[in-house]
Amino acid sequence: MTPWEVEGRVDYDELIRMWGTQRVTDELLDKIEKRTGNLHLLLRRRVFYSHRDLDWILEIYDKEKFILYTGRGPSGPVHIGHLIPWILCKHLQDSFDTKLYFQITDDEKFLLHPEFTAEVAHNWAYHNALDVIAVGFDPEKSFLFSDMDYAKTLYNMAIRIAKHITLSTAKAVFGFKDQTNVGMIFYPAIQIAPCFFPSELEGRKTPVLIPAAIDQDPYWRVTRDIAEKMGYYKPAQIHGIFLPSLLGPSGKMSASESKSAVYTIDTEKDVKTKIMNALTGGQPTVEEQRNFGGDPDICVIYQYMYFLFEEDDKKLLGRRQECRSGDLLCGECKEYLVEKIVQFLKEFQRKREKAKDVLEDFLLKD
Amino acid sequence: MTPWEVEGRVDYDELIRMWGTQRVTDELLDKIEKRTGNLHLLLRRRVFYSHRDLDWILEIYDKEKFILYTGRGPSGPVHIGHLIPWILCKHLQDSFDTKLYFQITDDEKFLLHPEFTAEVAHNWAYHNALDVIAVGFDPEKSFLFSDMDYAKTLYNMAIRIAKHITLSTAKAVFGFKDQTNVGMIFYPAIQIAPCFFPSELEGRKTPVLIPAAIDQDPYWRVTRDIAEKMGYYKPAQIHGIFLPSLLGPSGKMSASESKSAVYTIDTEKDVKTKIMNALTGGQPTVEEQRNFGGDPDICVIYQYMYFLFEEDDKKLLGRRQECRSGDLLCGECKEYLVEKIVQFLKEFQRKREKAKDVLEDFLLKD
Repeated sequence: MTPWEVEGRVDYDELIRMWGTQRVTDELLDKIEKRTGNLHLLLRRRVFYSHRDLDWILEIYDKEKFILYTGRGPSGPVHIGHLIPWILCKHLQDSFDTKLYFQITDDEKFLLHPEFTAEVAHNWAYHNALDVIAVGFDPEKSFLFSDMDYAKTLYNMAIRIAKHITLSTAKAVFGFKDQTNVGMIFYPAIQIAPCFFPSELEGRKTPVLIPAAIDQDPYWRVTRDIAEKMGYYKPAQIHGIFLPSLLGPSGKMSASESKSAVYTIDTEKDVKTKIMNALTGGQPTVEEQRNFGGDPDICVIYQYMYFLFEEDDKKLLGRRQECRSGDLLCGECKEYLVEKIVQFLKEFQRKREKAKDVLEDFLLKD
Repeated sequence: MTPWEVEGRVDYDELIRMWGTQRVTDELLDKIEKRTGNLHLLLRRRVFYSHRDLDWILEIYDKEKFILYTGRGPSGPVHIGHLIPWILCKHLQDSFDTKLYFQITDDEKFLLHPEFTAEVAHNWAYHNALDVIAVGFDPEKSFLFSDMDYAKTLYNMAIRIAKHITLSTAKAVFGFKDQTNVGMIFYPAIQIAPCFFPSELEGRKTPVLIPAAIDQDPYWRVTRDIAEKMGYYKPAQIHGIFLPSLLGPSGKMSASESKSAVYTIDTEKDVKTKIMNALTGGQPTVEEQRNFGGDPDICVIYQYMYFLFEEDDKKLLGRRQECRSGDLLCGECKEYLVEKIVQFLKEFQRKREKAKDVLEDFLLKD
């Protein structure tokens, strides 16, 4: 697994061992709940299951308020899986009253995709920014930037970082090869740079918390190795798992396979078609389903509810049991999810449209 | 030889063969003289001895005016050797009425020198810019920028370039190793970027001519490989040899060894001490000099006159003959050169001081 390629079924426990991260424990969640009075479903259901230094972030919160940093690689339309870390971010922004820096890595996607022009990547940055804003961040406390637009500050910070990263480290951590272009090889410094912006812009050594999918962790490992040498705190992370593809539970959803994910710009008809064709844990026939029950653990529909679309834990558990017992058929379950997603998107698309008028308020200026 | 390290005596003919450049011929110089009515001593004495496509630049000049591009790596004070390509640049600007883009690579020097902070590099950029302006460029037609200051436009162009340069190419051309930092590995794209600015900023495919020392050629070889793919002309070059170190004829002068070069900020006393201690082609004693004569070909004092400080070809030749015959003693020759350099620096330092007031007029704005 690299930040650019996640193949096959992901062994999330193995990633904790391999990358040396910490598991999100009941004790840690208790501490969060004590602070915020509630526990977001993405936390209590362990969609964010791993972390680094989140306990430290909570400990020093009274003295040193942390700042959130996350981002988006604008390679195409945004799907619901992309929203997951942003939804957690918004929850953390609201609960802890914190600022958010949000990086849109149009440079990365241009450098990565052979067929992309810089204009295409930058155009996706704009369209994806609308999705970010539609999540509901506070315009007073949220600072969006595309790498191409904010390149001056980024490059000046990135070279300071790059000086601490040898080619050897970059190859080992990111899997770069001789045929990799030199833009990609420098790019990690660009994604690391915003970890240190808060300290520079606030004028104080500032704790940073990064909510993001676990595949981005290689960047933060390198960051943590050099942060203190550069006079900054090591940034903390909270790592999410992937919402699976509608076509099967292995790997994350792909923006290039339109049937694999529900996009934020999908119509009601799109949603219906995609969900109705999704892979479930159901039996081949109604009769078998009634007799043997389904398997929610391999069911994508169930995962959608688990991640986002069934907020009520009891209802979710009930649905799980009814599936297992054969009382619930896949068709019913799918219709229920379609309804939930359509409702969600109706509101989201309204906010996304409105975002065009307020985009300027969110942009980080040079 | 890499753009960062020139060791030992340079075999300039071998570089022409190895790098596949063209020799500056009498025929080419005739063409220049026809255009400009005169031939600068740096051209007629073949200090600029090699080129690529300079004949093409002259051929299409009536239809498509070229633009000059050169630069400076601000690693310390400027010495007289650094001025050589800039003096040619000014001559070309005046003779061909052309614009000049001048890059000051503070990012490069920061990334290259372990002991440099970004602030130190950026500070040298400022001080070196004063030297550039003191050369006498036309403020209406000259555009100076430091990479750190102009990073936004540079980075956006550099990623377009970087996408065409594999790590494999970068290693082969620039000698990067596993311990090289990733900033340096990306840096060639930053130095290549200004080759294409004229086309972008003028809104037309624009011929570019780069006067620079021969050690910078690796950048232009890579540039020429990708220029046409990107829709630009291949930039043309004219390559200079190095003014030798005062301590000996091998290699270029080093800013880190203060006795090896005359800096633009040196006092009269500095100049006297340095020149009087310089290596000559003279005999150990006056008597031997009178009997056997000296060897101007290994004499640094002679080289200084050849490059810049004896404009009159006849006088230079006379001096050469008098040296060989033993009529001229090293002491006399050194005193003559001291006088010439002191005169030159007096005027240069006046202009350099004045440059502080007009720097803004030369800066390329975002």
